[in-house]
Amino acid sequence: MKIIEQTHQIIQKPNNPIQLIEQAGRTCYKSEDKITDDSAEIFAKKLVKLKHESVFEHVVVSVRFITNRGVTHELVRHRMCSFSQESTRYVKYNDMEFIRPVWWDKWTEKEQNIWIESMQNAEKAYLSLIKAGSTAEKAREVLPNSLKTEIVVTANLREWRHIFNLRCSKKAHPQVRQLMTNCCKEFKTFIPVLFDDIELHD
Amino acid sequence: MKIIEQTHQIIQKPNNPIQLIEQAGRTCYKSEDKITDDSAEIFAKKLVKLKHESVFEHVVVSVRFITNRGVTHELVRHRMCSFSQESTRYVKYNDMEFIRPVWWDKWTEKEQNIWIESMQNAEKAYLSLIKAGSTAEKAREVLPNSLKTEIVVTANLREWRHIFNLRCSKKAHPQVRQLMTNCCKEFKTFIPVLFDDIELHD
Amino acid sequence: MKIIEQTHQIIQKPNNPIQLIEQAGRTCYKSEDKITDDSAEIFAKKLVKLKHESVFEHVVVSVRFITNRGVTHELVRHRMCSFSQESTRYVKYNDMEFIRPVWWDKWTEKEQNIWIESMQNAEKAYLSLIKAGSTAEKAREVLPNSLKTEIVVTANLREWRHIFNLRCSKKAHPQVRQLMTNCCKEFKTFIPVLFDDIELHD
Amino acid sequence: MKIIEQTHQIIQKPNNPIQLIEQAGRTCYKSEDKITDDSAEIFAKKLVKLKHESVFEHVVVSVRFITNRGVTHELVRHRMCSFSQESTRYVKYNDMEFIRPVWWDKWTEKEQNIWIESMQNAEKAYLSLIKAGSTAEKAREVLPNSLKTEIVVTANLREWRHIFNLRCSKKAHPQVRQLMTNCCKEFKTFIPVLFDDIELHD
Repeated sequence: MKIIEQTHQIIQKPNNPIQLIEQAGRTCYKSEDKITDDSAEIFAKKLVKLKHESVFEHVVVSVRFITNRGVTHELVRHRMCSFSQESTRYVKYNDMEFIRPVWWDKWTEKEQNIWIESMQNAEKAYLSLIKAGSTAEKAREVLPNSLKTEIVVTANLREWRHIFNLRCSKKAHPQVRQLMTNCCKEFKTFIPVLFDDIELHD
Repeated sequence: MKIIEQTHQIIQKPNNPIQLIEQAGRTCYKSEDKITDDSAEIFAKKLVKLKHESVFEHVVVSVRFITNRGVTHELVRHRMCSFSQESTRYVKYNDMEFIRPVWWDKWTEKEQNIWIESMQNAEKAYLSLIKAGSTAEKAREVLPNSLKTEIVVTANLREWRHIFNLRCSKKAHPQVRQLMTNCCKEFKTFIPVLFDDIELHD
Repeated sequence: MKIIEQTHQIIQKPNNPIQLIEQAGRTCYKSEDKITDDSAEIFAKKLVKLKHESVFEHVVVSVRFITNRGVTHELVRHRMCSFSQESTRYVKYNDMEFIRPVWWDKWTEKEQNIWIESMQNAEKAYLSLIKAGSTAEKAREVLPNSLKTEIVVTANLREWRHIFNLRCSKKAHPQVRQLMTNCCKEFKTFIPVLFDDIELHD
Repeated sequence: MKIIEQTHQIIQKPNNPIQLIEQAGRTCYKSEDKITDDSAEIFAKKLVKLKHESVFEHVVVSVRFITNRGVTHELVRHRMCSFSQESTRYVKYNDMEFIRPVWWDKWTEKEQNIWIESMQNAEKAYLSLIKAGSTAEKAREVLPNSLKTEIVVTANLREWRHIFNLRCSKKAHPQVRQLMTNCCKEFKTFIPVLFDDIELHD
């Protein structure tokens, strides 16, 4: 058993996102003649202000998240996303990994120990079932929410805006909020004009 | 701790599904003058054969499923569905319920006991965390896939056809296959013309 | 050639929409024990305020619109809707109908006459092509935006709220705004609690 | 007035589509250790055979189509696509362009002349309305299906497979079939493994 931290890694991002957005967006107005070397950013900013967000859909970003299965049960409900997730039916675990809850330091030692022991029990039950002849898809019944899972999420920039607005909010579950806040910070760095306005709460 | 069986209950269904389908479908061809007292069934059957399935979208059915969270993690990925699910963030469990795996009788007594003990451990850990001051949304970390959950699923008839084709197949996980096979049988009873062709494997 | 006004007709609506919403919504909180004879409206109002709009997806309404093809080209882009529309490939027109633009009285007589003559020309060209042996799907090339079309639109209440917010706004095209404003007024009558807050601009 | 041919142009495509697909797809099975220099193509081919098509959603391609508004009225109904289309509300036409029907050579000279004259009449009516003071969004009422329009369509590879299967079929409208058949040929060239199996009918 290993306890690990949740992380994210951007595995696909466009070279010239706002140039593509300008190119698609100006199709609507037939104003391609207004494209200059530095017009894209101003154009994109205007679209944000006008809430003409459909144009942002032409650019996608893919992120690999390593997080727990409680978080992914929430995530996979987003409709305009694409997901490839580590399968508990086809993957048979030997060395099991669990995601350390983000509120770890706020838990008392007692709470920490209850969680650790619970993970140990779950791993033991899983391995015993496998040893007794159960397939992975049956043994998975005993796996807890904290189980580490990997998921590749591809979404367009309008959907990422929606995800970050929802999942970085104070109302979000702390585990998903931390994951998405860290991810959003990276989006703010490489496409600031489209993610500047998302509020984060560390 | 209680061990219960998974179930489904249809909570919303239309009065005259195939009449509504005929009414909508004939809009495409402007052939409303061909509507008679018994034309709807033949018309619907023709749409199935022609794969003009978009017309089936005008009728929805809502089902309340009581199943486990492993199953719902799969279910909620369907995009054209609407879901309202028992929240592990806002519901605090006292008397915990778990769903008996559908392959129960094929498990050895040893496997059954591993599962039972694992559920007992999970419940104990959850209640200890709550007692130690954790909120429900934090204590949920230790909850296993077998935890009972309730979910109301609303989908149109085209999507239900898609769900049953996918989830009643031999390739589906046995827990979701049993749930959906039982549900599909009921659909076959009240709208046979649209569900006759779905193959079931008990 | 006939000139007609655009209209809408609700052809499917639920009997107890807010009761169904309460039933589904309370699944999330497992608060079904709080259901009383008059709790549904208060519950639904609270969901609107909390923006917990996904629960509204369990109820659908179907509307038959008679409008023009310029309007439907906009409408069919809504993703969470289902459409069955009069086909210009399979319907062969004899007596052609056109939708009177909603700004008719603001047009000068000259503008009105240009439009009328243009419709007459389009009809004549279409009928000449058919007479010369063209199929409907080829002759349709000359049909104008003002051509009357029928479309059955089924959407859930969350999506209808989205449609009305978008299409009844001052920024919407006047033809679609009038159509949707009239339709929304009817929704406000039969499910006031969910449509009270939509602003209309006659 | 100008008569032009419909065309398409791919404006965004990935560098290593099948490598990205392998990377995402192997997340499901945790078989990343099987990645070699030439494993991606075999892996992708296997996904096609197994119909594990969701993995293809991680790669998007954007195409700019120049076609007519009859075609785009069909296209924009695809739900998993993103569209930016030349607006008839915000673009005011001076020199109007129309798309030559793909069956032009099969039409008799008489049919050709009816179409040409009809386009001339439509253009004249539009310009007269503008001259009489109508805005573009009002004058558009007289515009015909054959009007040239530009649309940028972004979709993932699973959706493109779906579009080509539907729109390149013999049942498709000839105008959309030609457009999509030409486009599909290009997809077959740069990602053969995913588009080999699409049947074309020139």
